[in-house]
Amino acid sequence: MAEIKFVKADKLKEKVDVSTIGFGTHFTDYMFRMDYNPQEGWHGASIVPYEEVKVSPANTTLHYGQAIFEGCKAYVTKEGKPVLFRGKDHIARLNRSAKILDIPQLPEDVAYEGLIKLLAIEKDWIPNGPGQSLYIRPFVYATDPFLGVSVSQTYTFLIILSPVAAYYAHGFAPVKIMVEDKYSRACHGGLGAAKTPANYAASLHAGLVAHEKGYDQVLWTDAAEHKWIGEVGSMNILFKIDGKIVTPELDGTILDGITRRTVLRIAREWGYEVEERKISVDELLEAHKSGKLEEVFGSGTAAVISPVGELICGTENPVHMVLNDGKIGPFAQKMYDYIDQLHTCETEDKYGFVEPIE
Amino acid sequence: MAEIKFVKADKLKEKVDVSTIGFGTHFTDYMFRMDYNPQEGWHGASIVPYEEVKVSPANTTLHYGQAIFEGCKAYVTKEGKPVLFRGKDHIARLNRSAKILDIPQLPEDVAYEGLIKLLAIEKDWIPNGPGQSLYIRPFVYATDPFLGVSVSQTYTFLIILSPVAAYYAHGFAPVKIMVEDKYSRACHGGLGAAKTPANYAASLHAGLVAHEKGYDQVLWTDAAEHKWIGEVGSMNILFKIDGKIVTPELDGTILDGITRRTVLRIAREWGYEVEERKISVDELLEAHKSGKLEEVFGSGTAAVISPVGELICGTENPVHMVLNDGKIGPFAQKMYDYIDQLHTCETEDKYGFVEPIE
Repeated sequence: MAEIKFVKADKLKEKVDVSTIGFGTHFTDYMFRMDYNPQEGWHGASIVPYEEVKVSPANTTLHYGQAIFEGCKAYVTKEGKPVLFRGKDHIARLNRSAKILDIPQLPEDVAYEGLIKLLAIEKDWIPNGPGQSLYIRPFVYATDPFLGVSVSQTYTFLIILSPVAAYYAHGFAPVKIMVEDKYSRACHGGLGAAKTPANYAASLHAGLVAHEKGYDQVLWTDAAEHKWIGEVGSMNILFKIDGKIVTPELDGTILDGITRRTVLRIAREWGYEVEERKISVDELLEAHKSGKLEEVFGSGTAAVISPVGELICGTENPVHMVLNDGKIGPFAQKMYDYIDQLHTCETEDKYGFVEPIE
Repeated sequence: MAEIKFVKADKLKEKVDVSTIGFGTHFTDYMFRMDYNPQEGWHGASIVPYEEVKVSPANTTLHYGQAIFEGCKAYVTKEGKPVLFRGKDHIARLNRSAKILDIPQLPEDVAYEGLIKLLAIEKDWIPNGPGQSLYIRPFVYATDPFLGVSVSQTYTFLIILSPVAAYYAHGFAPVKIMVEDKYSRACHGGLGAAKTPANYAASLHAGLVAHEKGYDQVLWTDAAEHKWIGEVGSMNILFKIDGKIVTPELDGTILDGITRRTVLRIAREWGYEVEERKISVDELLEAHKSGKLEEVFGSGTAAVISPVGELICGTENPVHMVLNDGKIGPFAQKMYDYIDQLHTCETEDKYGFVEPIE
């Protein structure tokens, strides 16, 4: 195992009441850091005080966006133990994103050990109220100070931590989502399967438009025809249609969500038929018309499960699909409760999702 | 006009011999800076020493890629005067990119005045050998230190300067370009018309693959069908077909290149018929077969004009279109020479492209 250097902060911050702050606005005292250059590979693993980083004005990421990130969470169990949820799977996905962006593969053991050590030091920052957690953001950004358009030779890997309340300001409540038919987040042959800034940059404007129209988020459709359902951008989307759990297949344009995996695994365990396949907007409209579209919900680390109360299709003559009377569906509620209990070890973890911090 | 503060550097750098350095690797002594927040708008215009900038580890650009940039050039005329080529047009395009990325519009007069003042201070950095220039990189990056996915409230605008030789290491010589049929740079409803990191991040891997196969760059095709010609990524693409100058129309997926504008304007002035329209790969193959595909060349600030000696279509049974015997075509040569003379005022500027620095 790598030796991880520790640089002590001069002064620690006051802990915050997470119920009063926004998502991702406050950070803990320390961060994990590792750097890459072609001579040394990934090196210099260390836990250092959380502070601003210096970059060249010509930094490759600021100009050409070569960067990747992850999002996962640590919780406190009912017995007061700090735990990490599927941390190894998130580090593995970071390396899958790295491959897509031509970023050198991270040594997963060192990254994971760094994360665990960081969490052990910062365990008092993990809030323990309902739905609260310590949000973990591992990320890699290119650091070459050159303007030529090419893959960077140098990188920095950081893990930062942010104590968070439940994602949605109004609690676990159904959201209104607009099915996008103009803008595109990603396309075939693009970066849609990677957790990388480009996909988020492409989503900002459509998100603004949706907010202005009174919707919470956008449900992306394929860039070629705006016919096939993709993902929401901050989460994957799942449907309960005629008793089955149906979600878009991993076709390279959407993220292979870890919470999506969690939900599908549990749904199968519960005996539900699960389909990962192409789903058209028309199929949803038909299923809704015939009463077979029973529930719609999103899955993602930030919100965990997010029930959808209304889907709006089309901008000129919009069709409003109200789902389950605009209320939380029983499947989404049950899934949320179960995962919530897994997070804090209130129910037995048959899956090996929960990882000890100390 | 805004007051532009000037912070003197303690020590100036040695000038470099640009014929020995790579593109965008060396920077001058100063940069222009301006910041944005909702209370003050764009403020604090200043010329400061070129040095690393500090960003939050949670900086919005590192995570979500909300940033834009420009590239233009300053030259020294034969009389030894420093001049700027189409600087106003580049600042205007920066604001068009800003609109696409929901970045607050820059005050163009202040940005332009800042650029001119910076260039006046740094005029000794403009190299005057053949094809040499001072490359100018204005850019804006989001600076909110938060992890919520939303449009940033704060931004930094910088202009940095880099003395450069002619773009291609082997001089003004034909390049080999691979017509992409797998990866995609941008799609309809995406960010293709903006000069923004996302488009470059999406291009890195295909560029690597092309290099490995021995090609210089990739010619992008539409993301939906890989049927329609787009741009090269570092430049627009133009064709001389049966005497006409033909180039893809501005459909939102490609950049509205300033050098593309320059070339089309001059071509029209020279009496050529110019067509901005959809061009399919099949049309090119047909035109090449019948001997009507006379020339292919790229246009962009970095390379100015880049003749294409060979286009390769298809990966399984690739078709190699050798153009003009793999040599520089007469139209591309004439256009390059003419723009080169415009840059340094060796020919009369009927267009108002050349802007004085002092």
